[in-house]
Amino acid sequence: VVPSGGRTGLAGGAVAKDHEVVLSLVRMRRMHAIDVLGRTVVVEAGAVTQAVHEHVAEAGLVWPVDFASKGSSTVGGNIATNAGGVRVIRYGHTRQWVLGLVVVLATGEVLRLNGALEKNNTGIDLRQAFIGSEGVLGVVTEATLRLTRPAPKPTVLLFSVDGLAGVLQLFRNVRDKDFTLGAFEFFTDRCLARVMRHRRVADPLRGASHYVLVELESAAEEPVVAWFEELLEGGLVTDGTMAQTSDQARALWTLREGISESLSATGLPHKNDIALPIAELEPFCAELETVFTERYPHFEICLFGHIGDGNLHVNVMKPDALDKDAFFATTHDLDRHLFELVRAHDGSVSAEHGIGLLKKGWLEYTRSATEIELMRALKKVFDPNGILNPGKIFDL
Amino acid sequence: VVPSGGRTGLAGGAVAKDHEVVLSLVRMRRMHAIDVLGRTVVVEAGAVTQAVHEHVAEAGLVWPVDFASKGSSTVGGNIATNAGGVRVIRYGHTRQWVLGLVVVLATGEVLRLNGALEKNNTGIDLRQAFIGSEGVLGVVTEATLRLTRPAPKPTVLLFSVDGLAGVLQLFRNVRDKDFTLGAFEFFTDRCLARVMRHRRVADPLRGASHYVLVELESAAEEPVVAWFEELLEGGLVTDGTMAQTSDQARALWTLREGISESLSATGLPHKNDIALPIAELEPFCAELETVFTERYPHFEICLFGHIGDGNLHVNVMKPDALDKDAFFATTHDLDRHLFELVRAHDGSVSAEHGIGLLKKGWLEYTRSATEIELMRALKKVFDPNGILNPGKIFDL
Repeated sequence: VVPSGGRTGLAGGAVAKDHEVVLSLVRMRRMHAIDVLGRTVVVEAGAVTQAVHEHVAEAGLVWPVDFASKGSSTVGGNIATNAGGVRVIRYGHTRQWVLGLVVVLATGEVLRLNGALEKNNTGIDLRQAFIGSEGVLGVVTEATLRLTRPAPKPTVLLFSVDGLAGVLQLFRNVRDKDFTLGAFEFFTDRCLARVMRHRRVADPLRGASHYVLVELESAAEEPVVAWFEELLEGGLVTDGTMAQTSDQARALWTLREGISESLSATGLPHKNDIALPIAELEPFCAELETVFTERYPHFEICLFGHIGDGNLHVNVMKPDALDKDAFFATTHDLDRHLFELVRAHDGSVSAEHGIGLLKKGWLEYTRSATEIELMRALKKVFDPNGILNPGKIFDL
Repeated sequence: VVPSGGRTGLAGGAVAKDHEVVLSLVRMRRMHAIDVLGRTVVVEAGAVTQAVHEHVAEAGLVWPVDFASKGSSTVGGNIATNAGGVRVIRYGHTRQWVLGLVVVLATGEVLRLNGALEKNNTGIDLRQAFIGSEGVLGVVTEATLRLTRPAPKPTVLLFSVDGLAGVLQLFRNVRDKDFTLGAFEFFTDRCLARVMRHRRVADPLRGASHYVLVELESAAEEPVVAWFEELLEGGLVTDGTMAQTSDQARALWTLREGISESLSATGLPHKNDIALPIAELEPFCAELETVFTERYPHFEICLFGHIGDGNLHVNVMKPDALDKDAFFATTHDLDRHLFELVRAHDGSVSAEHGIGLLKKGWLEYTRSATEIELMRALKKVFDPNGILNPGKIFDL
C-alpha cells in the first residue's frame, strides 16, 4: 500500500514501482472550523497546503509551512516528509506546526495522537515517529495544525558579495541585528545567468560571484535603511538593492524562486539537496569546488539554497557537448564523490526531500548501521507484515 | 539502571525503588566551545541548565529552556522529560532546542544522532524518540543545543480580571496585538493570599478572583502603554499595574513564582499538573468547580498555570481540621474525579512533569491501550532486556 497525496515529492516516496496499491488521500480534504482562541484547525490529510493557507487566512491566521509546490502538495505529504522550505529559518519544519495526528496503522487500527494539546508529557511521543517517516509506519489521515499570526510586512533586499565567505559574513552580520530574519537565501552567478536567460530579466546589481536575498521583518523602516547603507559603505557587500514596493519585492524573489525552473528550461540538471552544519559550509564548498575542478572540469555546478539552515541545492548541468546517457552514466560516481564529502563534514544526503526510493542507496552516508537497524525494527513494530510503502527509505 | 541528573523531577522518574543501580550523570558536565555562526553548543548531559545559560551568555546567546529548578536541573534530565516551563508560549519545549544527541543504548552501543544539522530528512528521526521518554529507551550523554539571541527587555504587567472567562478574554485580546507574548500566567486569589502570607507582600491590585501576569516583548514602549490604558478604560480588566523598573518586574514575577513554595510553607498541597486544549479550559474549570463543591466542599483548591499552553497546576490543600493520613486517603479518589474530567475534555494527566512512577496508574486516562502497547513494543526494540529505568511510565 503506497500512501499518496499531491504527488509533488522529489525522492519517489509515493511511487508504486512493484505493482503496489496506491492509496490516494486527495479526496479526504475536509477542513474543519478554526479554533481562534486556541489557534488550531483540524484538516484531513488530502487538504492542499494552499487551501489550508486560504482557509485559516479567513480567521486572520497562518499555517507557516510554505514552499513552491504549495498549490498541489497536501498536508499528509507535508507531515510524511516533515516538509521544510524557505521559511524554516523563521518558523522551523512542519513538525513544529502539527499538534495532533490521526493515523491508520497497517492493522487498520486508528491512533488518535495528542489532539489539540500544546503540552502533554505522558510517555513516548508516538506522533513524532510518524512525522518525516514517509508513510512507512502508518497512514496519516487527519491532523490538528498549530496556527500563528501573520508576520509584519517584510522588507526584501538583494546583495552581491565576494564568494561564499562573503555570504557567511553577511549572515553573521544580519543575525546580530535586532531584525527578525524571514529568509536568507543565496545563489551563484551561474544560477542567476540561467534565470536571466529563461525569464528575460536583468541583473539588478553589479555582477558578482554570489548573491544573497534577505527578507527582514521589522516594525520600523529606519533601522533597515540604516543597516542597508552601513553594508554598502562598509564593503561587506559589493552591491545591493532594497525593494521599495511589493512588485519590486516579488521581482527579487523571482531571481531566487525561478532558479529550479530556469535550470530545467535552459539545460539538463542533475539535482541534489544536501545539508551541512553551518560551521562546515565553507570548508565543504571549497573541497566541492576542488573535486569538480579536478574530476569534472567540463561540468557546470549551479549552487543555491537556504544557507541559514545549512541547506544547499547542488545542481550539476549536463554539458551541451555530452549526450544524455553519457551524462547520467557519470552522475552516480559524481554523487558518490559529493556524498563522501557530505559524510566527511557530518552532513546530510537529504536535507528536505527525503529518502524515498531515490536516495535509498545513500542512506548509510548519513545514518549509521545501528540507526538503520533501529529504523527497520521500528518498522516491524508498526507494520509487522511490511505492507505500508514497501521499499521506501530502506529494504526490510 | 536508573539514569539520574539534577534530581529535580516531580514524577519519580529518577527514583530507584527496587534496588536498581543509579547511573548519575552529574559529573559529565563539560560544555564545549560555542559555534557563534551556527548558534550551537555541545554539552554533556550533566551540565546544569543555569551553567549552560551562563556559558552561552558569554557569546551573547541564550538557550531558552528555563524554569524554576534551573539551578540544579541538568540538560540530560531536561531532554528526558522534554522540559517546558514559563517560556513555552514563546519558545516551545526542550525538543525545539536540541539539534543532536549522543545516546548510549542498553547494549552499550553509542548512537550519534543528527549532530549540528538543522535540516536532515533521512528516514525516521530517532532523536525524537529519546526526547521526553524519561530514560526508558537509552541514556542521553551529550547534546548539541540550538541557541538564539536574547529577546528584547520585556515589559511585565499584572491584571486582575473577573473569573476564568476574564482570563481567556484577556488572552484573546493580547494575542491579537502586535506584541510578542513572552509569558501569560494566571493564578487565583487563593494562591495570592498564600503568597502574601508567606512572603509578607501586599496585593498590588484591587482584589479579584483571578490574576494574570503578562510579559511582553516590544521594541517600543508607547504601544504597550496605550494597550494598558485601553484595557483599564475598556473594563476588560478590573485593575492593572505595569512594572516601571526591573525591581518592580521582579516583584510582580514573585507573586507568580512564589506560589509553589508558599503553598508548601503555609499548608499541605496535593499537586497535579494537567493540560487541556485551550478551547476546553472554560468548560473544564466550571465542571471542576462543581465536582469540588459537591464532593469536597471543605477542600481549598489553588489553581494557577501557564494558561497560554492550556497548562493548569491544580493544588488541593489539606484542610487544617483533617489529619494528614485522612487527607491523603482521599486524594486518590480525588485524582480519579479530576482525571475523569481531564479525559472527558481530551486533556493530559501530565502536562510537563512526566509519568515516572507517580502517574503510571493514570497513563491510560490520556493514552489509549494501543498507544501504550506501542510504547511497550518500542521499549523492547531499544532495550530488549528491560534494564533501563524499569517500571517507569509503564510496566513491561
